[in-house]
Amino acid sequence: MATQTLATWTVSLSYPDLPEEVINAAVRSFYNIAGCIVGGSKHTATITARKALSPFSGPPTSHLLGTNASTDAMHAALFNGIASHVHDYDDTHLDTIIHPTGPVACALLAIVPTLERPVSGPEFITALVAGIEAECKIGLAVWPAHYDVGWHITSTTGSIGAAVAVAKLLALSAEQVAHAIGLAATQVTGLREMFGSHAKSFHPGRAAQNGLLAALLAREGFTSSVEALEAKRGLEEEIGGLGGARWEIVRNAFKPFPCGIVVHPVIDGCVWLHGELERLGVDIEDVEEVVADVHPLVLELTGKTAPRDGLEAKFSVYHGGAVGLLLGKAAPAQYEDDVVLDRRVVALRARFRAVPDESLRADECHLVVKVSGGASIEKHVDYAVGSLERPMKNEQLTAKFVDQCVGILGEDRTDKASQWCWGLAEQTDVGQIKDVL
Amino acid sequence: MATQTLATWTVSLSYPDLPEEVINAAVRSFYNIAGCIVGGSKHTATITARKALSPFSGPPTSHLLGTNASTDAMHAALFNGIASHVHDYDDTHLDTIIHPTGPVACALLAIVPTLERPVSGPEFITALVAGIEAECKIGLAVWPAHYDVGWHITSTTGSIGAAVAVAKLLALSAEQVAHAIGLAATQVTGLREMFGSHAKSFHPGRAAQNGLLAALLAREGFTSSVEALEAKRGLEEEIGGLGGARWEIVRNAFKPFPCGIVVHPVIDGCVWLHGELERLGVDIEDVEEVVADVHPLVLELTGKTAPRDGLEAKFSVYHGGAVGLLLGKAAPAQYEDDVVLDRRVVALRARFRAVPDESLRADECHLVVKVSGGASIEKHVDYAVGSLERPMKNEQLTAKFVDQCVGILGEDRTDKASQWCWGLAEQTDVGQIKDVL
Repeated sequence: MATQTLATWTVSLSYPDLPEEVINAAVRSFYNIAGCIVGGSKHTATITARKALSPFSGPPTSHLLGTNASTDAMHAALFNGIASHVHDYDDTHLDTIIHPTGPVACALLAIVPTLERPVSGPEFITALVAGIEAECKIGLAVWPAHYDVGWHITSTTGSIGAAVAVAKLLALSAEQVAHAIGLAATQVTGLREMFGSHAKSFHPGRAAQNGLLAALLAREGFTSSVEALEAKRGLEEEIGGLGGARWEIVRNAFKPFPCGIVVHPVIDGCVWLHGELERLGVDIEDVEEVVADVHPLVLELTGKTAPRDGLEAKFSVYHGGAVGLLLGKAAPAQYEDDVVLDRRVVALRARFRAVPDESLRADECHLVVKVSGGASIEKHVDYAVGSLERPMKNEQLTAKFVDQCVGILGEDRTDKASQWCWGLAEQTDVGQIKDVL
Repeated sequence: MATQTLATWTVSLSYPDLPEEVINAAVRSFYNIAGCIVGGSKHTATITARKALSPFSGPPTSHLLGTNASTDAMHAALFNGIASHVHDYDDTHLDTIIHPTGPVACALLAIVPTLERPVSGPEFITALVAGIEAECKIGLAVWPAHYDVGWHITSTTGSIGAAVAVAKLLALSAEQVAHAIGLAATQVTGLREMFGSHAKSFHPGRAAQNGLLAALLAREGFTSSVEALEAKRGLEEEIGGLGGARWEIVRNAFKPFPCGIVVHPVIDGCVWLHGELERLGVDIEDVEEVVADVHPLVLELTGKTAPRDGLEAKFSVYHGGAVGLLLGKAAPAQYEDDVVLDRRVVALRARFRAVPDESLRADECHLVVKVSGGASIEKHVDYAVGSLERPMKNEQLTAKFVDQCVGILGEDRTDKASQWCWGLAEQTDVGQIKDVL
C-alpha cells in the first residue's frame, strides 16, 4: 500500500493544506539551497561535469544558478544538484542525515521553465514539500540499516523525492505518480564509499535527474512496478503519517559549516575557544594539545587525520576543529585546498586528538585546550549551532547566502537575489529565478 | 586491489590478445544484440521513452537501430538499450543470468560516431570484450546473493561493463578507468521488483547510459573512490582471472525464445510435443492436462499463471509452454498482447501445471501431456536449445536476426545488415552501422 498511499497523498496535497510553519520551513529550505547552488557553481566538480557533458546537451531551457548559462532540463538538474551539495553546506534532516532539498529543488527548477505556463511560488512550494516529505518519511523507515550497509541515503531517497515533486508539478494522476515512484526507486544511486570524492556531490545531482526522468517517463505512460516501496519494513506507518501530526520539513536544519554535520559541535566549540584564546592573549603556538570527546560516530564518519584536499577535509573532524580554533571560522573558504595544506593548519591538526565517548550524543562534544605551562581551557557544547535546538536564524541564513553569492553575483545582485528568494511564497513566476541568481 | 586490477587489465587489453573463440563469441554476441535492438525498436516501451525524452535531446550524432532517427549519444545509449532487452530475447551469461551485451554494445554504439576518427571492428570488439568480461567476472563474485536480495544483475553490473568498454574505446588511463568504474558502480540501477513492466528494459538502457556517463566524466577528471569494487567478497579472485584460462564471453548464450531463460526447457519440449501431437493426429482440444516438472527457480521467477500482456507473459512458464504446444513456436509474435489474451491460449494455459522438483537442474525439465482417453506423451529435455550444451548455431542466429529485422528493414536491407554484422571483425568503420540497420 505504501506506494499507492504516497501517490494518492501527493495528488491530493494542496497549498492551503500546508501549516504556516511548513511554508516557512519550505522557504528557508529553498533559500538555503539557492545560496548553496550559487556557492557551488564554480567548484571543480561542477565545472568538470559541465565540461564533460555539454557536447550532449539539448535545448538550453533551464538556468544554471550563479552562471549566465542554461542547458536542457535533464542536465540542469544534474549540474545544479552537484553544485547544491559540493561544499557539504546544504540542509540536513537530522533524524535520517538526509540532505533533502537539493535533489527535489534542482529537479523542480529544471522543469519549471519548460512548462507552457508560469509556476507560482505556492505551487512550487507545494511540490517541494511533497518531495521532501516523501524523502524523509521513506528515510525514517529505512534508517539506520540502509545507511549502515553503505547507501548514501540522500540520493537513494532523493530520486524518489524528486520524482514525487516533479510528478506533483506536472499534475500526474495517482497511477502515474506510482509508476514515477517505481521508476525512481529502481535507480538506486549513491554509495557512501564515494565520500571524499566528486562522486559524493554527483549523487544528489543524479538523484534530481533520476527523479525528473522518472516523472517524465511516467507521464508518457512508461510503466514500472506500482509496489516499489512495499517491501520496506516500517514504511506503511511512516507513509501513513504523511501530512499528519508531524511534518518532516520543519525538522530540516541548515548547516553553519560546510562539512559533515557530526563535526559541527567541535567546530562550534573551537570557534568559541578561538575567541577565548584571543581574549586571554594565548598564542596558538602555545597550544600543546586539543582533546575533543565526541560520539563514536564522529570518528567513524569524519576520522581523516591528514586530509589531502578540501573534499577530504570535510570528513576530518581534525580539520574542522583546527580551522575553528586557528581562524575562528569554518566557511567554504576554510575548506579550500590551500588552507587544508597550509603549514599552520597541518601543524594544529597534528596536535588535535578526538576521543570516542559513548556517553555523548552525536550533537554534543567536550573540548579541552591544553596550553604550554599547564593551563587548560574547556568548552562543553550541548547542541551545535544549526541543530534543531539552536536553529539558524533567518539573519544567519542571510549571512550564509550572502557569503556564498557575493563573490559570484556582486553585492547588488546578491541583495536582490536574497530578497527574491525570501519572497518565494509571493512569487507569481518562479521561472524568473534565471534573471535573479 | 580489484578496481585497480580491472582498470590495469582494461588498459592493457589488445586485439591480438583475444583468442579466436573469444573473437567469434564477440561477433556472435554483437550480431545477436543488433537484431534484438532492431526487433525492439518499435516496442511501446522504446517508443514511449523516446517520446518522453526527445524534448531534452542534444545533437543527433548517434543512430537508433531499426529507425531513420538519431539522437545524442546519451539518449541513444538509453533507447537502444531499452530496445535490446524489451523482448527478453537477448543473450545470457548462464552462470550469472546476466544479459551482458546490451548495456556494453549500446554504450559503445552511442559514442562511436561522436569520435573524430573511425573505429575499426577489431577496436570495437576489444572494447566489447573488456566490458563483457568485467560484467561477468563481477557477476560471478556477487552471484547469487546479489540477485537473491532483489537486484537486477544485468544492469547493476552492466553499468560497470559499459563504463569499462567506453573507457577502453576512449583510451583512458588506468587511473581514469578506476574513477569510471567507481562512478558507474555508484549508479546501482535495477530492482527485480520491476520485472513484468517497462522498467525491466529500462534497466539495461540506463546501465548503458550510466556507464557512458561515468567514462565521460572520468575522462574530464571527475573523481570517485578508486576502491569501488574492493568490498565485494570473492571479487579479487574473479578479477584476477581476467584474460586467463576462462573467458566469460565464450560462455555467453543466445536466446531462441524471447522470455526468461528458465522457461526455455519447457518451451523447447513443448515445441517438440507440438510436432508429436500433429504426427499422432491429436487435437489440442483433447489435451486434458500438461504437467511440467521443473526446477523450483522456474516457478519463483516465472510463476505468473494469468499474464495480462506480453511483458507479463515473459514471466509465465504457463504461457511459454502453451504457445509452444499450441503454435509450435515462441518468437516475439507469440508474445504479442493479443496472443497472450487469445481464448485458445488462455484455455490451454489453464490446463498447464508446473511442479517444482529439486532433483532437476534449472535447464532441465520433464513434460507429460495427458490426452483424453487416458493416453499420455512424455518428453524429457536434458538441455534446452540455446544452452551451452546445445548452443544456437550461426544459422539459427541468422534466422532469429532475419525474423526480427525483416518486418522493419525489408528483405534486401536485412540481408545486407546480416552480412555486415557477421563481418564485424573486418569492418574498418563501425560508425557505418547507421547506414546498415
